[in-house]
Amino acid sequence: MERIPILKMGPFLLVTIQIDLYDRLALTLENDLINMVSQTGARGVLIDISTVSIVDSFMGRILGNIASMSRIMDAETVVVGMQPAVAITLVELGLTLQGVYTALNVEKGMELLNTKLGDNLELDDDEEEDQDDRND
Amino acid sequence: MERIPILKMGPFLLVTIQIDLYDRLALTLENDLINMVSQTGARGVLIDISTVSIVDSFMGRILGNIASMSRIMDAETVVVGMQPAVAITLVELGLTLQGVYTALNVEKGMELLNTKLGDNLELDDDEEEDQDDRND
Repeated sequence: MERIPILKMGPFLLVTIQIDLYDRLALTLENDLINMVSQTGARGVLIDISTVSIVDSFMGRILGNIASMSRIMDAETVVVGMQPAVAITLVELGLTLQGVYTALNVEKGMELLNTKLGDNLELDDDEEEDQDDRND
Repeated sequence: MERIPILKMGPFLLVTIQIDLYDRLALTLENDLINMVSQTGARGVLIDISTVSIVDSFMGRILGNIASMSRIMDAETVVVGMQPAVAITLVELGLTLQGVYTALNVEKGMELLNTKLGDNLELDDDEEEDQDDRND
């Protein structure tokens, strides 16, 4: 079982990290996730780390990488369920997870993504309207 | 990380099994899940086993146990994402997962639970109507 499952839930992908992310597994996850975003056209990625109690700079970098890659593929990343101790450790390590959204749990993470998606759709509409104006 | 996270998604709970379920971990999962059903009033439990490639009678029994316990707590259990080889093995082992619903993936599992929930709600309504009739 050397693979982290990626679950499709509507327009979002959900990943729960339960095991220590060593190099190869992390690379496989990045790869699988980007492929899934591409295949499904997902607009958001939720990463649940509620059972992760130990975090290091490697884990921080992987989360950052996933967020950057997803953004290029037009999907936002939300890390959910972070334990308080993990947040403390991340800040003490000087990792502020830039570019990664966070939420308390999966439900709140989905709300956040829905809001962002809604905002983007509205923006798209506005842009179209602007274009219409220009066309007139 | 010796605990399987249980994610609340609306009226359902989602568990993804990524690691080998040995005795103590399975008991912890059963325990956590029943507590979560009780705390959240969840109406359905989704168990994703898409990365499980090896299944034995112990795993089959655990899934059956979870379904039976959940049913007593008024929640249905759907096992999702089973690999074809796992289904073959289960049948060859003589385990037909009685009392456990299955679906191809999480989305289809949620649809199934929503349908079941809808049916039950309609039944409840009917019962209430019957009671109203009796009251008249």
